[in-house]
Amino acid sequence: MFPLDLRLQQDTLVLGDFPLCRLLLSNDANYPWFILVPRQEGVSEVFDLDAAQQQQLWQETSLLAEHLKASLGADKMNVATLGNVVSQLHMHVIARFKSDIAWPAPVWGKVAAVAYKEQQFAELKAGLQPLTAHGLVLA
Amino acid sequence: MFPLDLRLQQDTLVLGDFPLCRLLLSNDANYPWFILVPRQEGVSEVFDLDAAQQQQLWQETSLLAEHLKASLGADKMNVATLGNVVSQLHMHVIARFKSDIAWPAPVWGKVAAVAYKEQQFAELKAGLQPLTAHGLVLA
Repeated sequence: MFPLDLRLQQDTLVLGDFPLCRLLLSNDANYPWFILVPRQEGVSEVFDLDAAQQQQLWQETSLLAEHLKASLGADKMNVATLGNVVSQLHMHVIARFKSDIAWPAPVWGKVAAVAYKEQQFAELKAGLQPLTAHGLVLA
Repeated sequence: MFPLDLRLQQDTLVLGDFPLCRLLLSNDANYPWFILVPRQEGVSEVFDLDAAQQQQLWQETSLLAEHLKASLGADKMNVATLGNVVSQLHMHVIARFKSDIAWPAPVWGKVAAVAYKEQQFAELKAGLQPLTAHGLVLA
């Protein structure tokens, strides 16, 4: 078991595992906001990973972003690793829409999170099914 | 000549070129805020690049981030590609300090930019010299 930061545990729902990363969903129905967390201990910056792990992280990030943009019909994908508050390395992959509540600003700190309803969560998760052909194991 | 978005031209200073990306400095002395722009036309998302270009972009991003964190003694690196306003693909690589004016919030839209003085810019640019051994050609 790799230790997942407590704040990430509290603010997210578990979707599954890619070969390197745990895939989480930010429990905020304002945006389809996914988070990839490498299952490694003591890693804060991308360059704390070895070269092969870095490449794997970027591959999982790109794969997820491309799938989400197409499947959700997003206007733009936002990809970011910040970590000023939660230092455990995590990569945000957020589907943005010109109609979303924060557009065109970044999502952080904009409006209060709205928890998912069970049905909404199930639908988003079902939409990830095609990624199981690319190494994703759903929870 | 690849076409650089007008807003990026206006808001940044040119530092040089990596094999794939032009390296820009956001003209905002509040933060050491670098921007990598692949010298490709018509690219908005990371996955619009081919696989080799994606790998090159991530390598240049990691290399720059690691160098900046060590050479500037930053507390955290922020790495992000958003593009909600400027759609041309560009990667932010920002050195963050617990003492900076926006910490721990993301930098976007926080405070008005403060233009660099010539001397400050020259010092930041000189600090990139070690990256010339890794493919950076300074302007």
